[in-house]
Amino acid sequence: MHLVAIGGSDAGISAALRARELDPSSDVTVVVADAYPNFSICGIPYYISGEVTHWRNLAHRTHPELEATGMRLRLDTRATAIDVPEQRITVRDQHGVQSWLDYDELVVGTGALPVRPPIDGLDGLGVEDGVHLLHSMGDTFDLTTSLDSIRPATALIVGAGYVGLEMAEGLTARGIIVTQVEMLPQVLPTVDAELGALLHTELTRHGVKVHTNTTVTRIRRTEDGPARLHVEGTGPESEPLGWDVDLVLVVVGVRPDTELLTAAGARTGPRGAVVVDASMATGLPHVWAAGDCVITHHRQLGVTYLPLGTTAHKQGRVAGENALGGTGCFAGSLGTQVVKVFDMVAARTGLREQEASAAGFHPVSSTATPDDHKAYYPGAQPITIRITGDADSGLLLGAQLIGARGTETAKRVDTYATALFHGMTVGLMSELDLSYTPPLGSPWDAVQMAAQAWVREHQLDGQRAALQSTH
Amino acid sequence: MHLVAIGGSDAGISAALRARELDPSSDVTVVVADAYPNFSICGIPYYISGEVTHWRNLAHRTHPELEATGMRLRLDTRATAIDVPEQRITVRDQHGVQSWLDYDELVVGTGALPVRPPIDGLDGLGVEDGVHLLHSMGDTFDLTTSLDSIRPATALIVGAGYVGLEMAEGLTARGIIVTQVEMLPQVLPTVDAELGALLHTELTRHGVKVHTNTTVTRIRRTEDGPARLHVEGTGPESEPLGWDVDLVLVVVGVRPDTELLTAAGARTGPRGAVVVDASMATGLPHVWAAGDCVITHHRQLGVTYLPLGTTAHKQGRVAGENALGGTGCFAGSLGTQVVKVFDMVAARTGLREQEASAAGFHPVSSTATPDDHKAYYPGAQPITIRITGDADSGLLLGAQLIGARGTETAKRVDTYATALFHGMTVGLMSELDLSYTPPLGSPWDAVQMAAQAWVREHQLDGQRAALQSTH
Repeated sequence: MHLVAIGGSDAGISAALRARELDPSSDVTVVVADAYPNFSICGIPYYISGEVTHWRNLAHRTHPELEATGMRLRLDTRATAIDVPEQRITVRDQHGVQSWLDYDELVVGTGALPVRPPIDGLDGLGVEDGVHLLHSMGDTFDLTTSLDSIRPATALIVGAGYVGLEMAEGLTARGIIVTQVEMLPQVLPTVDAELGALLHTELTRHGVKVHTNTTVTRIRRTEDGPARLHVEGTGPESEPLGWDVDLVLVVVGVRPDTELLTAAGARTGPRGAVVVDASMATGLPHVWAAGDCVITHHRQLGVTYLPLGTTAHKQGRVAGENALGGTGCFAGSLGTQVVKVFDMVAARTGLREQEASAAGFHPVSSTATPDDHKAYYPGAQPITIRITGDADSGLLLGAQLIGARGTETAKRVDTYATALFHGMTVGLMSELDLSYTPPLGSPWDAVQMAAQAWVREHQLDGQRAALQSTH
Repeated sequence: MHLVAIGGSDAGISAALRARELDPSSDVTVVVADAYPNFSICGIPYYISGEVTHWRNLAHRTHPELEATGMRLRLDTRATAIDVPEQRITVRDQHGVQSWLDYDELVVGTGALPVRPPIDGLDGLGVEDGVHLLHSMGDTFDLTTSLDSIRPATALIVGAGYVGLEMAEGLTARGIIVTQVEMLPQVLPTVDAELGALLHTELTRHGVKVHTNTTVTRIRRTEDGPARLHVEGTGPESEPLGWDVDLVLVVVGVRPDTELLTAAGARTGPRGAVVVDASMATGLPHVWAAGDCVITHHRQLGVTYLPLGTTAHKQGRVAGENALGGTGCFAGSLGTQVVKVFDMVAARTGLREQEASAAGFHPVSSTATPDDHKAYYPGAQPITIRITGDADSGLLLGAQLIGARGTETAKRVDTYATALFHGMTVGLMSELDLSYTPPLGSPWDAVQMAAQAWVREHQLDGQRAALQSTH
């Protein structure tokens, strides 16, 4: 049995690991486009910031550790075609030499590519100009080369999503004055405005100049002057804006890298991602796919596109198992995400109101600010928790949290994620037996206090009426 | 409708709060034996340590806050009898004046009393000798009076359970040299030995002299010499041991305070606690009971006795609702607990092997030590996680965790507690969509890595065989 995985990131490596674990006799080859298998792309901002001292440390597992599992790695090798009937892929090595690789089962994890927004001048500029996209280890090395050669005093980041925010922190940590430009009305547009506002304040507090409702329209090299790049944009009142900066970083999201699969006949779905079923089958015989190149089964939304490393790990594991004849099934995403921005942590799981409405729910929300632990014990800090539930069924639909580092906000969102996985009502969350000690919690944990605030706001009148009717 | 709650701690106040919330027209009286309604008993060690700067801060809610909810408080008033047929209780105030209070519904939350172990000389010694038990605010004031007057250089703590460990830290924080004596083979006997050993090291590292497998047999006042008390004990090899100390603190657990209810005809169950059903009804007409005085419905064990503040809050809330005619039901405990001991946090939920065996399961366990977050990001520290699951069904039965402060161990146990609430298998935990960012987690969170270690150890052979059989 020869399993070939295309892609050396989360999905491909997870598939290979699972296959080797389940069948130590299986022959497993991973085709890796660059020289960096199993690298933690999510860790790049912390290498840029200097917190990760060597890029090699970003590897989840080293090359020897991967080989010790019994998998074979073909580095600097790009898969260029899949011959589905012949069960064979065409590959090209770094010298341009083409060859073929037969497979019994194929797992494709080609991942995603950074989106290039329609900014005038962007296509004509590159890393030598100090204009960067950031997705791969190669992009990372390009950026650190620029940082070392240009020694920028100022940078402009296009985008204020997860990576944009982490990079604002990372560049600030290097002493660079950062301007952050976001097209949407708030930073971290994946959480509600009142939570985004708290992050906005945190960015400003650390010297980041934030512009929301602002679109970058043009980037050009300056002829002279201290800064090398001139960026133009349009502000919230349609007013023209301009910034002179030494470096521009464009991080406005990703799109699925599907060329290989679509050329082989795979179907595509939301956002152009390749369609797979919950077993990670593409529909092409003996071809599985996983990770950022495929659509995402969401437990509440059905089929969507929501590329996340956690999801890629799970999907890759399922694909590896099923390629061997297993019966694994990806249980579905809840879109659980967390980001640290300076001293704040923002997390979400499940749906926000507009997403829930679109999915046919009748969502209502409440925001509470319980302390992370008993106020009498030193260091207590509020966590802002916004709960969304269904007004009709009382089902928990989603939770958004923002709190200071040290408030265990990142793992409190996991309690909501686990509750969502099981379709709990908001009210039932008060019955969970959660841990309590005064330095770290409360008799009703913060997650339960927020749930109770939702119940009081949206269900107490009904509870009172029900009680009255029994008298 | 006049609801009377006896007891001003978690259960009684929770019942009163819920009643006032559900029916603002309800007449609610809480009879409180001392002057400290709604005080956080769990916070006492942090007042002793000096971290809580004033004892008043230990109140969950102040007296005016409680009255603002519309409840009436009868402080320094002890309920001495329940006349069930007449729906009336006898109370005695601090001046010894007896009176009566009629009720329509009664919620009894008399709580627990500290256990006095059979130590020769203990009954003849008291606070004026520097010998203390610790459960109520009164005990707390006695202890702080002793600390101020005796100014002890040394103290011996009998017991190394949750409170004993917190007090070892608290007294050490005051500069007192602490000897801790535990009858059982390890500190924190409610977790497995390998986790207890880590806490033992932490105590020793902070100067606490720990004696396990050691029984205190006698305490007496010294005639002269620098220390006022001489404590004798028997060590692990039955050898006689002796300590001269300035202060002795006996914290070896609690027993339910049931006198009032049993005199009124209530039945008792495990550990002599009053029997209630899941609605918190005692079986006596119009008499409900909740908190440390009643038996505990455990989701895995059935009826047991496991007094915890979190449980008392939940039970009190149910009792208050049902006293008003509601249909609340206590969903059951999982014994979730957490304790901070100096810089370590130990937590558990569900069952350990011996408990699970006794309950008819076929438990097997695995221990893993995943990092709290990605090792490449500064500050990563291992969390020791011991998973117990059922070998036949694969069901998660329990989890024990110990990690450094800052590893979000206290809220990671909550993910297991939520999984247990829903009867998850250990294997299914890998499908939970938990949060990840490199500074705070991993693509498979630590709780999932520990679950996967259990699956590898106990189920991988079966998974491999199942896969082989499909070929």
